[in-house]
Amino acid sequence: MAERTYKIVMIGAGNMATHLGLALYQKKQVIVQVCSKRKTSSEALAKKLNCKATTSLAKIDTTADVYIIATNDDSIASIADELKLQNKIMVHTSGSIEMKVLKHCSKNVGVFYPLQTFSKTRKIDFDKVPVCIEANNKATLETLMMLAKKVSKRVVKIDSEQRKLIHLSAIFANNFTNHLLHIAEELLLTHQLPFDLLQPLITETLNKTEHHSPMDVQTGPAKRGDTKTMKTHLSLLAEHKDYQELYKLLSISIGKAAKRNK
Amino acid sequence: MAERTYKIVMIGAGNMATHLGLALYQKKQVIVQVCSKRKTSSEALAKKLNCKATTSLAKIDTTADVYIIATNDDSIASIADELKLQNKIMVHTSGSIEMKVLKHCSKNVGVFYPLQTFSKTRKIDFDKVPVCIEANNKATLETLMMLAKKVSKRVVKIDSEQRKLIHLSAIFANNFTNHLLHIAEELLLTHQLPFDLLQPLITETLNKTEHHSPMDVQTGPAKRGDTKTMKTHLSLLAEHKDYQELYKLLSISIGKAAKRNK
Repeated sequence: MAERTYKIVMIGAGNMATHLGLALYQKKQVIVQVCSKRKTSSEALAKKLNCKATTSLAKIDTTADVYIIATNDDSIASIADELKLQNKIMVHTSGSIEMKVLKHCSKNVGVFYPLQTFSKTRKIDFDKVPVCIEANNKATLETLMMLAKKVSKRVVKIDSEQRKLIHLSAIFANNFTNHLLHIAEELLLTHQLPFDLLQPLITETLNKTEHHSPMDVQTGPAKRGDTKTMKTHLSLLAEHKDYQELYKLLSISIGKAAKRNK
Repeated sequence: MAERTYKIVMIGAGNMATHLGLALYQKKQVIVQVCSKRKTSSEALAKKLNCKATTSLAKIDTTADVYIIATNDDSIASIADELKLQNKIMVHTSGSIEMKVLKHCSKNVGVFYPLQTFSKTRKIDFDKVPVCIEANNKATLETLMMLAKKVSKRVVKIDSEQRKLIHLSAIFANNFTNHLLHIAEELLLTHQLPFDLLQPLITETLNKTEHHSPMDVQTGPAKRGDTKTMKTHLSLLAEHKDYQELYKLLSISIGKAAKRNK
């Protein structure tokens, strides 16, 4: 049986829309239109996806199968309120927005949430990005699963509660770890030391998680209960009260986790 | 001119001693002895390094050029107190212990601090590990620089203040990020979701730092000032008061950093 090809309208032209749009296009799906308020972004992405561009939701192509709102979280509800697409499938790509914000758009709504951080300048191997799928009915779920399997080897059916938890855990694993790396960078730079000194350590920290539970590879003064070193560190952070507080709280939390897992 | 070969005594037989010992041995340095209280560890490492083992500091070989205390931090001072090595070079490998704890051992003391996290089960490309060097006189510094250059392409001369800062920043970049990954793991597992869902995101988060400043790639609700999402997350953490506090503090810190760097 020939594989089905889907016709897709991409709403948004930012990082998510670009990476997802390109992944779908490369897997022979037909992007029929890109819709974004920002004319230059919309046209730039449309060119890459070999399709038309519009800046107006009123001019949206109504012949597609699937409509993907891949904008920032704040815009999703207001875009959904403007669209009436009856029986078409309407999804958003957000980890944190409720599926129900789409319910006035169509009878068939869902979430198509690629669990990754996308940037303009970085290539992503979409094949490996877990795509978390949710839908308000079985037929829509099946279509979304099929579509997701075209771009990724890891497709997971989840519910809204699980998606919230996945998104929250992603905040810890991505946003918060990145901020800690920023603090490390700031501490080094203010003492005329280059950040890339830490690169091998950062790489190893990450690589370890591929083979070990983070719990099992925790090290450092907080794990050992080495109060002397912790005191020295807190005094080094005297001019950064915020970082001092973070140091304390993280160390206490590491200490507790170590006790729980003894 | 033929390159000088150093004769080395390795004190300690844990992860640091093993990785550093093997790196030196592979670069044709002569490890004359391994000294560790734990007989099995001492003998196992000595076998790998093709040398003798002892469990007693009293029996230490006095014919070597360089003595490396590569034990855990807590043991360094007491080991140093037991050794009298006159003009030999004596170093420790710790990021946080003062060089001066070695001063009664020898006239020539220093620090040989490889900036990496070492585990039993993981291979490390020592070539890429930055080695931070400190010494109490010029001749010792030169010897340590030469020795470090045998095992690493990145050798940095630092002072005690810088070493403290590097160690502190490494705590943020390694210990603390690892703990956040542990929290992410715990959140997922308690909701029957596999941790490896986050693997591509973690890999991308850390790979980004090879090419971008963490400040420039920060994303997420705290950066955007998205209080609605943050509230949802805090309510999801209601049963984990510690993690709730960490979430708040990290989000505030991200918000402040975003304002500073606008």
